[in-house]
This record gives sequence, C-alpha cells and structure tokens, in this order.
Amino acid sequence: MSGTVTLTQAELEQIITAAFVASNTSEANARSVAAALTQAEVDGQKGHGLSRVPSYAAQAKSGKVDGFAVPEVRQTRPGSLIVDAKHGFAYPALDAAIARLPELARSCGVSAAGITRSHHFGVAGRTVERLAEQGMVALVFGNTPQAMAAWGGRRPIFGTNPIAFAAPQRGRPPVVVDLALSQVARGKIMVAAQKGEPIPSGWALDEHGEPTTDAKAALKGTLVPLGGAKGAALAFMVEVLSVVLTGANFAFEATSFFDDRGPPPGVGQLLLAIDPAAFAGSDVFLDRFAVLAAAIEQDPGARLPGTRRLALREAAARDGVTVDARLLDEVRQLGAS
Amino acid sequence: MSGTVTLTQAELEQIITAAFVASNTSEANARSVAAALTQAEVDGQKGHGLSRVPSYAAQAKSGKVDGFAVPEVRQTRPGSLIVDAKHGFAYPALDAAIARLPELARSCGVSAAGITRSHHFGVAGRTVERLAEQGMVALVFGNTPQAMAAWGGRRPIFGTNPIAFAAPQRGRPPVVVDLALSQVARGKIMVAAQKGEPIPSGWALDEHGEPTTDAKAALKGTLVPLGGAKGAALAFMVEVLSVVLTGANFAFEATSFFDDRGPPPGVGQLLLAIDPAAFAGSDVFLDRFAVLAAAIEQDPGARLPGTRRLALREAAARDGVTVDARLLDEVRQLGAS
Repeated sequence: MSGTVTLTQAELEQIITAAFVASNTSEANARSVAAALTQAEVDGQKGHGLSRVPSYAAQAKSGKVDGFAVPEVRQTRPGSLIVDAKHGFAYPALDAAIARLPELARSCGVSAAGITRSHHFGVAGRTVERLAEQGMVALVFGNTPQAMAAWGGRRPIFGTNPIAFAAPQRGRPPVVVDLALSQVARGKIMVAAQKGEPIPSGWALDEHGEPTTDAKAALKGTLVPLGGAKGAALAFMVEVLSVVLTGANFAFEATSFFDDRGPPPGVGQLLLAIDPAAFAGSDVFLDRFAVLAAAIEQDPGARLPGTRRLALREAAARDGVTVDARLLDEVRQLGAS
Repeated sequence: MSGTVTLTQAELEQIITAAFVASNTSEANARSVAAALTQAEVDGQKGHGLSRVPSYAAQAKSGKVDGFAVPEVRQTRPGSLIVDAKHGFAYPALDAAIARLPELARSCGVSAAGITRSHHFGVAGRTVERLAEQGMVALVFGNTPQAMAAWGGRRPIFGTNPIAFAAPQRGRPPVVVDLALSQVARGKIMVAAQKGEPIPSGWALDEHGEPTTDAKAALKGTLVPLGGAKGAALAFMVEVLSVVLTGANFAFEATSFFDDRGPPPGVGQLLLAIDPAAFAGSDVFLDRFAVLAAAIEQDPGARLPGTRRLALREAAARDGVTVDARLLDEVRQLGAS
C-alpha cells in the first residue's frame, strides 16, 4: 500500500473519531477534534489535518492533553466569557465559545471569549468562519510555542501567533483572512534542512540573532517576523490578547504541540464577535461589502482572500478527500487498537 | 529666520489652536485638533503633527472639513457606539468615543465604537494609549486614501490602513503598538523621487503591478503591503472593520487628507476596548504582563514596542519641543489672519 487514498469526508471523520476514542479521549471530544482535523484536511490545510492525529493521540495517551476534559464556560459580563479548556484539546473549548458568542454580540453589540489552558487551535480561519456563518464579523488571536524573537533580540519569545478574521457576505460564503506572523512557516525551513538546501535570506535568524541562509542554523534560531519590526509588534500584541488577558502560558512557557513530552502547552486564544446590526446595520454592511468585493474582483489578477478553500471544499464534496495512504493506515491502526 | 525654534508644549498647542479658530473651526474643535497634533509633534510623529496644520486649515476654510461639526454619538447596544463625525475633524469624534468606551467595557466586558464620515485620525497609537490609560486593552483600525492593491492586482484599493494596540502595565506607562500596513511609508518614496534617487526593490509596484525601483513610477503605482499577501489581507480586514461596519468611504472612494479639493474623505475607524477585569482579572493581567515585559527586556537588544515616544515626551517636558521655524511661522500667520 502506497501513494494516496480517496474517501468521503464522512468516512475520514469517522476514522479519525475512532482513533481518538481508542486514545484516552471521550467520544464527544473525539468528535469535536475529528470534525476540525477533517475540515482542515478538506480545506487543503494538511499541516492542521490528518497529519496531526498521531501526535495528538500520543499526547492524549500520555496525559499531556486531557482527552476527557470538559471545557468550563464562565460568563463574566453580558458580553464576555472565560473558557477554561482544562488542558484538553482546543476544539471543544472553541465549540463552546462559538456557540455562545453570537448571542452575546447580538445583545451587547460586541462579545469576546478568552480561552485559557488550551492547546493547538488548528486552522484559525475556521474558527472565525463559523462565527461569520452566524452573521458575525469575527477575529481570533492565538499564541503558539516559541518561534520568533522580540525585535532586535535573539531569544525566541513569541509564537508564530496566528490572526484570523472573517465576515459574512450576501449570497456568498464568508470571506476569511488567516495568517501566521512569521515571514514563512517553520515547515519550509525543516524541508530545506532535510534536503540539505539553503534558505532564502529574510526567512530566519541564527541563535545569535544574525540573518542566516543555513537551514540547520535557522532551526536553532528564530523565524523572521512578517515585515520585520512590524510583525514582531503584532506577535507581541497577540501574546497580550491571548495570554495576558486569559492567564494562559506564553509562547516561551509552552511545550510543543507535536510531542508527548512535558507538561501541557497551556496556550491561550481570544475570540471577538461583532454584530454588524449594532453598527451601520446589516443591510449597509452587506451592501458595502458587495461594493468592496466587486472593486477587488474587477482588478485582473486580484481576488478576495481565502477563496481557495471554497474550491477545495466543492471538489471534496464531489470527488472525496485524497489523503496519504500510509498516514491513513496509521490512523486506522490507532482506532483498531 | 531659519532652522528650528524651541517652545513649550503649551505654547505650541496654543499657537495651533489659534490657527484653527481663525480657520473656520469652533474653539472646542480647534482645541481637540491642537491637542492631538501637538502630542504627535512631541512624540516624534512629525508627519502627524505641526506639519498638518496648513493642509487641515485649508480644508476647514474650503469646507472639505466642517470645522464646526459636533460629533453625534449613538449608543446602539449596551457595548456599542456609532459616532458620526459629520465630516468634521476625526479628533473630536475620537474624544467622544474614548470618553464612553471604558465605561461600556467595564459593564459588558468589551465595547466597540465605529466612527463614520471621519477624517485623518493622526497617530493611531495615541487613541489606544488613551484607552489604556483608563485601564483598557484597546485596538483601533482605520482606513486611509488608496495606496495599496489587493494581492495580485494593480489598482490601489486599500489605504495603508493603520492598526494600533495598547495595554496598561503596573507602575509603567501603557505599551503601544502602532503600524501602517505598507512595507514603507509613501513619504520615503516621495523623498527619493524629489532627489531623483532609486528606491529599494520590495517597496512599491508600478501602475502595471510590476515591482519597480523607480521612485516616480512607484508614485503612479501602489505601495507593497507588509509581508506581501499577508499585509494585503490585513489591509482588507481593516477596510471591512473600519468601513463596511461603519458605513464610511472605502480607501478607493476617499479624497486626499492633504489638499482642499473634492468632497470630504469620509473614511472610518473602529475602536475596541476590552476590560481585563472581565477575563482572567486585573491582577492576573498586570502580573502576567510584567512577566512578558521582563522576558523581552532580558534579551539584549530587544525592547518593548513604542518606548521611544516616552523618552521624547520626557525630553519635551524638560527641554521644550523643537519645531521647524518656517512651519511655525506659517502656523502663527494663520492664527493672526
């Protein structure tokens, strides 16, 4: 058995669910995690999809992630929630926040949920897309284990700290913006290191804080933030929003999302939902958004952000999801054990 | 008379106030604008300081800005405001939002104000700093006239669209992050064009959407967004937050902030205030922030964002503000007319 396998989205989700149920995880949590990882796989975000199952499952088995955790939601004010993920997977905590935020935003105009003692939150854009599907303009900020230095420094202090944003459109799926704050993903540098190839300058700094094109030196150093000092400032902002506000762990305190060693990562996320009806109004919002979308789409070569995922979803619904055969087999084995 | 003049902050503010009072502006609005421009000058943000007085005053005289506008604040929900700046200066509208948001955030956990029919909002960081001085974690997003293309496009659709963020610290002034979403400011390209010098690649695209090092071709084209596609996606996000939500004008609909021609720019801003007490709590917030600040400051060469303004403020309080003598004279003449 080699190459790829194509199966339906429902089949894939079932296989992933079974892998978690067999790996120290409650059925409810297994379903939540499987839904998120399957959607990522369908949306072409393979780094947040099926490939995560073995390392997630190992963490549930070792207890680094509590697969039985039930997130605790506390409403602190009419517009705010604190969600304690209790060192479980992030997805059940995200589900809980997404279920409550729109109602709070409709009554207060805007609402926010801070998630603490959390874990890898996967495709940030999917979280805000789910809020936009309920009519909200949404933002999410989350920190990740240490990867980037403060500007001018050499120690990794910040994560790559994704920011995502989504907003509803009339008669079209929400637009989604989703970006990590490093110039490039660490994965690209890992690939270059494995191949023994150099990396372009501007991607990474070595452990002395000096620019490097040596992929191995880069892995010991830090990633260059998006646009230099400005990206570092945004990464700082994300640490404050997702960690200082929620009482979670900083990037430099968080253990890896990839292995089962050490205490739980305990990172944080902050979700914001804004109800367009509480500002210029829903009709104005949808009308004006259509004007912006048309202006962008009239420019040859330009398009709305995040449109690729929609084409991939359509293809998956029609033709199924194609995954790595060996990886799928490994996940099936987990479920059979 | 040439070179520079040094005067006290109060003297400078008074001279600017007089210039606006003599230029079709109410005394209350003149004071608000003068306070903002003086603070920018003190903070070393000369592009948003005294240099703006002649063009602002010309706009008030021509009616492009309504110097007598009284911003109208409407509370739409317990946590949300719409502020109609009524094509006046942005600062009185910002003042009105800043006065109300902390109280709404304390009761709802989070609050937001959308400002519409607005104008140049100056130093974005100052707006959020004023909210942080009242204990809030704050964000602001604002659009500016067209400068950057959607990713892959050639027409300028987005402004340079600043984002600013501030948060309170224990026993220290708030930390402030403030950045525009272009790789470099247009001003740097204007200077190169005037000197007949080339610009580095990566700063700008020509009118065909191709990278250029010719400063004059760059001025006819678009600025490169911070980090490429990611910066363009953030600029899109800012248009949605500051314009689609508030019903203001898009970057590509807005007239210049610099001349007195055409209708009012009518841009928008969105302010968000988050009360740390409604999340992990004020003490946790301040404790954790101190841990983050220490981690950054222990790294040689690294520092918290925005610290330069504090040194400049101290120097100004001690030694006065040093400004361009010819420019000051021009502003004095405005006030005497």
